[in-house]
Amino acid sequence: MNPTLQTLTAHRSVRAYAAKEVSEETLQQVLRAASRASTTGNMQLYSIIVNRDAEMKRKIAPAHFNQPAVTSAPVVLTFCADFRRFNRWCRFREAEPGYDNLQSFMWAVVDAVAATQNACIAAESLGLGICYLGTVTYNAHELIKIYGLPEGVVPVTCITMGYPAEQPPLTDRLPMDGIVHREVYQDYDRERIDAVYAEREASAETLRLLKENDLPNLARIFTERRYKAEDNVAFSKLFMKVLEEQGFMNF
Amino acid sequence: MNPTLQTLTAHRSVRAYAAKEVSEETLQQVLRAASRASTTGNMQLYSIIVNRDAEMKRKIAPAHFNQPAVTSAPVVLTFCADFRRFNRWCRFREAEPGYDNLQSFMWAVVDAVAATQNACIAAESLGLGICYLGTVTYNAHELIKIYGLPEGVVPVTCITMGYPAEQPPLTDRLPMDGIVHREVYQDYDRERIDAVYAEREASAETLRLLKENDLPNLARIFTERRYKAEDNVAFSKLFMKVLEEQGFMNF
Repeated sequence: MNPTLQTLTAHRSVRAYAAKEVSEETLQQVLRAASRASTTGNMQLYSIIVNRDAEMKRKIAPAHFNQPAVTSAPVVLTFCADFRRFNRWCRFREAEPGYDNLQSFMWAVVDAVAATQNACIAAESLGLGICYLGTVTYNAHELIKIYGLPEGVVPVTCITMGYPAEQPPLTDRLPMDGIVHREVYQDYDRERIDAVYAEREASAETLRLLKENDLPNLARIFTERRYKAEDNVAFSKLFMKVLEEQGFMNF
Repeated sequence: MNPTLQTLTAHRSVRAYAAKEVSEETLQQVLRAASRASTTGNMQLYSIIVNRDAEMKRKIAPAHFNQPAVTSAPVVLTFCADFRRFNRWCRFREAEPGYDNLQSFMWAVVDAVAATQNACIAAESLGLGICYLGTVTYNAHELIKIYGLPEGVVPVTCITMGYPAEQPPLTDRLPMDGIVHREVYQDYDRERIDAVYAEREASAETLRLLKENDLPNLARIFTERRYKAEDNVAFSKLFMKVLEEQGFMNF
């Protein structure tokens, strides 16, 4: 296995960081790698907000439900879908941009996530640990206020970054033939679902979680504890309002 | 620079492929690296459709506006945001999923793109070339029919893959301080826009494009030729309908 494949397959989320600073040079290498990711029509439809300042990390922490990694990580990177820069450029050149719509938002999201993932892999190749914070889309409206994001800009991913103070075990993944489809989509009947989830459901980690949560199976831990319908609906409404207010729903 | 940083920073889109097959073993390495990407709550909210069959590539080509790479690449990978598998698992376990909404779609999109980018980097580390096809979200409705994608599944990225028959030059990128913001968002005034786009606007490639398109500046090539408002609006309407029909707009 070549060194890049080793880095890619050794990923684990690191949430506890050593008290070692990330040098500006290392950060630059990470950011530069991010900027080399594929991007729609070479428009680079994203911006990266770097937080190193302790006061700023305290300010954004509530938007991330005060996950400890936000304030303990030396670096927090927030990747935004960003059509602001491109639209401003167009207007200053007397070109009329038509990018205030869902399709344009999707390009910018794909650009932002591809850049994020490049940043993660670069960081890990340099001995850093990273963790994605899914909370970024839940409370995008709050981050927009704190960061002062203008129309055309929506935060879509956030990663914490620093030298690891822990080496968590690799998390499991579903069997490859549970996620790969040959030529066309092969739908999931009960037999296939049972096979795909068998190992995960029988794991010691699952058994521990069932006991801790007093629930009969792992699926119900997801639906009743981790990702509840009422929360998903509430955060979807908030996020749709964000897309409207940031100018991506005009079509 | 370590080998992984070298791979990340050497990316160029490759659209012309040598007549050399991609072995099943190499493909497996690429897919396995994809599966190790960060994923929301370890739900792996994506599926990967592998096309190697010439007949299938011919079938999907029109949905990609017949870009030659689709039929000439030995492998085409389509990454779908996929809540179908997870929802089926929940239902077979008497857990009631609440993932038919925008927030859930966003998790699945981030998962799918992170996996895609891992696949790209793995492929490039193995000597393959890749190219993203943005057309996948334009004509998602057609791909849904061809692949037989059920409710909960939406194609979000597509890459063609094969051994390169060309080595295109690195494309330019905006200066790093044009895309990186320290602590908060620094908005773009005319002076900053001029600085950020100066090098690109003065490049030989831009001058060539202006002549070819008979337009006074690069921005107008984007707004009047490449990504026109009327097309973006039409494809946004189609994609919103896809999100509704595939069950992500119930909130």
